[in-house]
Parts: sequence; structure tokens; C-alpha cells
Amino acid sequence: MWELRSASFWRAIFAEFFATLFYVFFGLGASLRWAPGPLHVLQVALAFGLALATLVQAVGHISGAHVNPAVTFAFLVGSQMSLLRAICYMAAQLLGAVAGAAVLYSVTPAAVRGNLALNTLHPGVSLGQATTVEIFLTLQFVLCIFATYDERRNGRLGSVALAVGFSLTLGHLFGMYYTGAGMNPARSFAPAILTRNFTNHWVYWVGPIIGGGLASLLYDFLLFPRLKSVSERLSILKGARPSDSNGQPEGTGEPVELKTQAL
Amino acid sequence: MWELRSASFWRAIFAEFFATLFYVFFGLGASLRWAPGPLHVLQVALAFGLALATLVQAVGHISGAHVNPAVTFAFLVGSQMSLLRAICYMAAQLLGAVAGAAVLYSVTPAAVRGNLALNTLHPGVSLGQATTVEIFLTLQFVLCIFATYDERRNGRLGSVALAVGFSLTLGHLFGMYYTGAGMNPARSFAPAILTRNFTNHWVYWVGPIIGGGLASLLYDFLLFPRLKSVSERLSILKGARPSDSNGQPEGTGEPVELKTQAL
Amino acid sequence: MWELRSASFWRAIFAEFFATLFYVFFGLGASLRWAPGPLHVLQVALAFGLALATLVQAVGHISGAHVNPAVTFAFLVGSQMSLLRAICYMAAQLLGAVAGAAVLYSVTPAAVRGNLALNTLHPGVSLGQATTVEIFLTLQFVLCIFATYDERRNGRLGSVALAVGFSLTLGHLFGMYYTGAGMNPARSFAPAILTRNFTNHWVYWVGPIIGGGLASLLYDFLLFPRLKSVSERLSILKGARPSDSNGQPEGTGEPVELKTQAL
Amino acid sequence: MWELRSASFWRAIFAEFFATLFYVFFGLGASLRWAPGPLHVLQVALAFGLALATLVQAVGHISGAHVNPAVTFAFLVGSQMSLLRAICYMAAQLLGAVAGAAVLYSVTPAAVRGNLALNTLHPGVSLGQATTVEIFLTLQFVLCIFATYDERRNGRLGSVALAVGFSLTLGHLFGMYYTGAGMNPARSFAPAILTRNFTNHWVYWVGPIIGGGLASLLYDFLLFPRLKSVSERLSILKGARPSDSNGQPEGTGEPVELKTQAL
Repeated sequence: MWELRSASFWRAIFAEFFATLFYVFFGLGASLRWAPGPLHVLQVALAFGLALATLVQAVGHISGAHVNPAVTFAFLVGSQMSLLRAICYMAAQLLGAVAGAAVLYSVTPAAVRGNLALNTLHPGVSLGQATTVEIFLTLQFVLCIFATYDERRNGRLGSVALAVGFSLTLGHLFGMYYTGAGMNPARSFAPAILTRNFTNHWVYWVGPIIGGGLASLLYDFLLFPRLKSVSERLSILKGARPSDSNGQPEGTGEPVELKTQAL
Repeated sequence: MWELRSASFWRAIFAEFFATLFYVFFGLGASLRWAPGPLHVLQVALAFGLALATLVQAVGHISGAHVNPAVTFAFLVGSQMSLLRAICYMAAQLLGAVAGAAVLYSVTPAAVRGNLALNTLHPGVSLGQATTVEIFLTLQFVLCIFATYDERRNGRLGSVALAVGFSLTLGHLFGMYYTGAGMNPARSFAPAILTRNFTNHWVYWVGPIIGGGLASLLYDFLLFPRLKSVSERLSILKGARPSDSNGQPEGTGEPVELKTQAL
Repeated sequence: MWELRSASFWRAIFAEFFATLFYVFFGLGASLRWAPGPLHVLQVALAFGLALATLVQAVGHISGAHVNPAVTFAFLVGSQMSLLRAICYMAAQLLGAVAGAAVLYSVTPAAVRGNLALNTLHPGVSLGQATTVEIFLTLQFVLCIFATYDERRNGRLGSVALAVGFSLTLGHLFGMYYTGAGMNPARSFAPAILTRNFTNHWVYWVGPIIGGGLASLLYDFLLFPRLKSVSERLSILKGARPSDSNGQPEGTGEPVELKTQAL
Repeated sequence: MWELRSASFWRAIFAEFFATLFYVFFGLGASLRWAPGPLHVLQVALAFGLALATLVQAVGHISGAHVNPAVTFAFLVGSQMSLLRAICYMAAQLLGAVAGAAVLYSVTPAAVRGNLALNTLHPGVSLGQATTVEIFLTLQFVLCIFATYDERRNGRLGSVALAVGFSLTLGHLFGMYYTGAGMNPARSFAPAILTRNFTNHWVYWVGPIIGGGLASLLYDFLLFPRLKSVSERLSILKGARPSDSNGQPEGTGEPVELKTQAL
């Protein structure tokens, strides 16, 4: 529990709250319908992608800018953060998402609010199809995050923020037609709670969680294996304080494995 | 007042004038309506974003490419420039913006000019809602600028120009429906003075100034604290000449804290 | 045949299978028609480009992320991989593409499937014109890949993933009107086999293969020559095991010339 | 005249021919009208921008990827290349542009060719307004190129290719409504010669040439001065062979000042 006494831990929690608030505010807001006619899918997809890109750029070095319980779950599965930190991140993300949707609600004329860009299944898409789609959307997204954040790489990787933002945009270009493109339980949860509409809501938790977990296992065990022992993994999950031997000058006691060097 | 005798100071002032002229010229120009039908929001949002990206690329190393009194205000609040420099920047930005709008006016057929892309509130959006929206738009934008320009970071940050340009695009994708997306008092001021229409004009000053100031405080004091004493801050604001002790070979006497290394 | 006993070889084959599956799934899926009206060319072109960009980012360091038999053929012509590896890559790509199209088929409502974004010639475009267009589309694409992956360069090249993704987008912005923009025999093959429609299918093999081969020769012999002797080339094509003299600590025995340092 | 005996000189000339051929082929081709309705300005603007970005990525390290007589003129004014090289570049660009338009003509159904995306003034735009617009479009573009290619900078500049490509896109987002957005005499010349329509053609030479020259002077003398003596400038313009003293190991005799390190 030593993490709870670290200032950088609480800064990270606040950054997740803050970033998810802005992610939901901008993402949902850019999806509202101010005029009749078909939804402008490309515009909405770019808005979500650029929102994430901007937030990764802004707070990636503080918390990793997960902004998404499925991403945090994937990092937990990959033993890249402690269980305590993961739970706090997810709570902050859900609170931030609801706060963002609430602010959006309050600044938007009633005629425009609609269902606040609630994720819904397209007529004709079954629950199984929708869940499969959410798994595929999130799998490519989390795989891209893992590969981009991977501190073992040193090629021409460009901007971390744009890489993950455009991967999110890709998911929306495909998924908006099927499921509205959740890819993020916090983003799906916020309008559901404000509009009190939880129809098929579980799809937007089960799909992204499975997709994120699969991506984590696939990357760490099959595609680009990390050699970590079980005891090492357990020690990270329990939030072991970093040993003094690594010679870090600063004494704030960062968690062993929060990898944000790429940011 | 030693800055006034520095060539690089005047180059920076000229760069701000020049860049704001081009920003307003291209941004407003790409927003004009050559044919009936709904405004192409994505196209206008990308035009503003790419205009800023291009200008940051072109003059970022000369003046920091603020191109925006709210950004300059945020850097002043963050003690990253002297008061004298900030005032000169803002004056140059306002003059440049008016000049850009005037050039645009002169090259555009009368039938197309309309209100020169004046920022106006969408019917149904209250003044309080509009101000809140402008605060949120500018907050994410200035936070992205502060995090991207931060010389303490060395991760995979990619292009400074694209990061801040796409953050501006994001603001437009959301804000154009509510307020026309000001995010920049100089951009809002120029068409207001040319069309002599100052209805609700204060919103486009108060919102961005509050949003920029908040972002500066949030980043410097909460998210990623900088350790600067009050006397250090005061000395920067007063434009202290850099001491000889830092061993800079060049003798032009750059201000202590104008951070443009990232550019 | 020593490569067949290397774990990294099989990881690369799996990465090609996996990436082509996702490439086809997202590319074709984003091209489906959920509503009447003209196809949104820009949206589809960006979906293909961002799909490739995301996959290059995700598995580029594992297999090079060819995702395309024409690209693998070009690398073979350029003596950058063994014949054995090239054949396995192509088989994995074709299998992956069919798998991706099959998954897409199963998650898509029947009314929306259409011809699964099958590549077809626009009425009025002759077979010769179509083949020429496919050659030009693939030539610029493979040339961009060769120049971007070139380990001899160290300039401001930005993200490998975005560079090749945007080159693919460019090809689609032009080619979708003429041929539907194949540029990738695996992408063209998958919907052809699922819809059992092979009309003019050879165009989508001959064009990209010629374009890719030409780009390889052009880059390696004319534009930016590589000095490689014939015996060196033959040894690479035969999959020679790297000599011990290059001092690589890892003993997995990477092929001599699989260049993925840029990734 | 020693340059004429250098292989790298002829590779650069060929690269300019080749790149301009592809630039015109893709840019004009993506501007053709396959269906009635308004032109999709954003799509065309992105096609031109991504075409340039791809070509800068592909041949930037070989010739600098000017692909544009106005850009070559600007580098000549800035004493960054010899007069002989500049003339050969321009000739190669014009030939390449005509070849590209001719290939486009031959692969396009007659009903779609139209005027091959000839640059024309929008009704209501005067010749003076059109020339001013072309000056402004090219000025921001060449300024961005000079600042991005500047070998004295070492900040977070990202991809050279995307920076200049997006600057070109910006010019099109504004200029297509006024003049069709020339910004490049070779691009304007090619459809004019194929359709034998030279109405107001001089605008597309005078505007970009003035804009490019102004940008060069502005950047080199005012914004970010280079200290070069008149004799040094003259020696570069005359194509002085590089002295042996700079210790370059390769003996191909590159021109003193062709700056392509950024690529």
C-alpha cells in the first residue's frame, strides 16, 4: 500500500480522471446531431482518435493515458502495473467519464442532446456479432498500444499519441456501423447512466475486456515474448516498491513496471 | 528593457505578427461559403489545424509560434516569458490577425465574404454554456501545448507541429457547433472588427483566457510540477537578462525561459 | 531450411497471417454499404491506410508487416529475404486474408454484405488501363516502403507506419474510381473466393506484382543503389544462416537481410 | 560543369522527373469527376498532400524532392543549389509533369477526363486576386519547406514528408475555391498543354514564383538568418566542387550546398 503515499501515484489517478472526462466530453460531443441527415462517420471517428491522441500527448508521461478500463485491464494482465493501481485507474476512469458526460449534458441545448451518443447495436446485428466486433476492435487497438509503448523498441515509431489515436479512429471507421464502436467501457457507461438505458450494455464491457486481455496475452507470450518469472509478475501485481539498487536519483518510489518511457 | 535591443526579440515579434496573419487568412478563408448547403465541419477543422501545424513548423523555433493571445497568456502565467515580451506578442498577434482578415477581404469576391467566418453562438446555446465550452476547448489545447513543448520530456513525442495542430482540430470538431470554435481571441477579434459586429464578443476573450490560464496552472502545479521559486518567477516576468554562468557561447542574450528547444 | 527451426521465423509467419486477417477484416468492413448513396471514398481510403499503419506499428518489428504478397515479392526481388521465407509469408497472407473475409462475413448482417467489397473495374475502364493503374498504384506504394524501411537513412523520417499507411491511402484516393484499388493480391483474393467471382481477377495479381517488382529494381539499382554481389544475393535468397562474426548476442539466427531496424 | 559527370546528379534529375510524373498523375487523377455533384475539396486536398508526402519520403534523400519549379527557384534564390542543377531540375519537372498527365489521359475513360483538372479562376475572382492568392499559398508552403529542411534545427520536427505534405493540403483547402490551387507551375502546365488551354496561365507561374522567392528571402534574411557571404553564394550558384578539406570519405563530389540531411 506504499503507493498510496506517493504523490506521483495520485497525480496519475487524477490524470486518468481528468483525461477520461475530456475524452468522453469531446468524443460524445462531436457525435451529437445538430442537423438531420446521416451521421458523418469519418468526422466522429477522427474526433475520437484526435481526442485520444491529444490526451496521450498531454498526460501520457503522468499516467500512461489509458483513459479506458479495457486498456488498464490489459496492462494488468501483462503484469505492467499493480492490482491496486489498476483498480484506482478504473474507478477514476468511470468517474471521469460520468463527469464528462454530465458536463456535456449541461452545456448542450436540450434539442441536441438526443441519447448522448449512447452505444447501440445496429438493427440486424446480433449480440454475438456485436461482441465479436467489439473484441476485434479492441484487440487491434490494445495490440497497437502494447507495441507502441514497448520500451524494447527503438525504431522509427513516430508519435505514440498519433499511433494509438489513429488505431482508435480505425476501430470507429469500422465499428460505428455495427455497435457504435464502444472499445472503452467507460465511454459506453457514461451515456448509459445519464440516459438510464442499459440495453445490451454488457456487450460494451465483455467485448473490450476480452479483446484487451487477448491482445495482452498475444503480444507478451506469442508475438514478442517478455521473459518474466511468475514471482516477478506477482511482485508487480502486488505493487512491490522498487529496490534501491537501480540507482534512481529521485526517491519518490515509482512502481517497478509502469512503463511510460515511450511518452 | 534590454530585450528591446535584441535582434532575436524583434524577429520573434515579427514571426508572431506574420504567423497570426497567415493563421487568420487561411483559417477564415477555408471557412467561407462558396456554395449553399451545410458547412463542411471536418474540412474547416482540418484547415485550422493544418494552418497551425504549418506555422509551428515554420516559425516555432523563432517565437514559439503562439499565434494566440490565450496561449501567450498561459505561458505568462507559467512564468515562461517576460511581461514585456507577452505584451508585444499579443499586440503583434492582434495586428497580424486584423491584417490577415483584411487581406482575405480584399482577395475574396463580395458575394462570398459573408461575415468573414465571424464566431457566433449557435441558436439555443446560452452565454454561460458558450463560455464553458470555450474554456474546455482551450484547456485541452493549451494543456497539449504545455506537455508537448515541455523540455523535460524525451519520449516518442513525434512532431510538435502535428500534435498541437490536431489538438486545435479536435477543438473545432466539437466547438464549431456551439460557438464556431474561437479558442483564440485574435482569430475572433479580426472578423469582428472588419464586420463591426461585437455581439457576445467577450465570450471569445474570457473563455480562452480562463481556459489557457487554468491549463497552465494545472500542468505546472498539479500534473507535472515545476520547481520554481517566487523570486525566480518574478525575475523571469521582469525579463531578467540571462546570467553569464550558463555558458552559452552566443552573446545575444536570450530571455531566461523562452523554451523553444522542442521546436 | 534452418529457418524452419527458428522461433522468430514462425512468429513472423504468424504475424503475417494475423496482420493480413485484420487488414482484410477492417479494410473490407469499412468499405461495406450500410446506406444507399455514393461510396465515401475518402473514408474508405483512410480506413485502409490506418489499418495498415496500425498493423505496421503493431507487428512491424516481428515480420516487417508486409501484409501483401506484392510487397513480399518486391523484397524477394530486392534480395532482402530468403525464397523460403517469401513463400511462407505469401501463404500466410493469403490464408489470413481469407480468414479475415470469413470473419467479416459472419459478423455482418446479410443485407449489408453485398459483394464483400470485391475489387471490380469501373465501367469504361479497359483491362489494359486497369492493369496500368494497378502498376502505378503499387509502384509508388512499394517505393515508399523501400525508401522508408531503408536502414541507410537517418533523417527526419517520422513514423514508418504513417508513411506507408498514407501511401496506401493515396493509392486508394486515386485507384478506387478505376479498379477499386487492389494494390494487394491477398486483399483482392479474399472476397473473390468468398463470393466465387473471379472476373478479371488476374488484373489484381499481375498489376501489383509488376508494380512491386519494378519499384524494387528502380530503388535498388537506379535511385539509391545497393552494392550487393550476385553471390551475396543468392546466399540471401537461399536463406544463409548469419555468420557468427557479427557478434549478435542472441542465438536465434535471424536471416541475414530481414531489415526491420526501422520498425 | 563537373556536376554533369556525377552519377548522383543524374539520379537526382531522374528522381525529379519521376516524382513530378507521379505527383501530377495522382494529384490530377484524384481531382477527376466520376459523378456529378460538387467537388470533394477535402479529398482532393488530401490526395495532393499525401502524394507529395509519399514522394518526399521516397526520393527526398536523392534529390530533395522539390517536384516543383517554384520550390527549386526558392532554393536557387537561397543559394542552396547551383544554377545548372536548378535549370536541370526545372526541365525534368516540366517533362515529368507532362508525362504524368499524358499517362493519366491514356488510362482514363474519355467521359471522365474533362479538362484534366486544369487550374482555372473561380468566376468573380480577378487576376490580381488570383495572383495574390497564389503568392500566399506558395509563400506558406515554401516557408514550411525551408524551416523543415533547415539542417540547423534539431527539435521534435517529426516527419519532413508529412510536414510539407500537410502544408500543401492546407494550400488546397483554401486555394481550390479561388484558383484551383496551383502552387506548382509544373502541375498547372501539364493539363494546360494537354488541353491546349492557356487562359490566364501566367498566373500559375508568376504567383508561385513570387511566393517561393519571397519565402526564401524572408526565411534566410529576416526570420532565421544564414551568414553567407556574396562570394560564397556565387560559388554555390556556379556549382563549385566541394573542397577536399571537409573530409567526406566518398569521392562522388556532391554539390557544396544541396541540403538533404533532413531527409
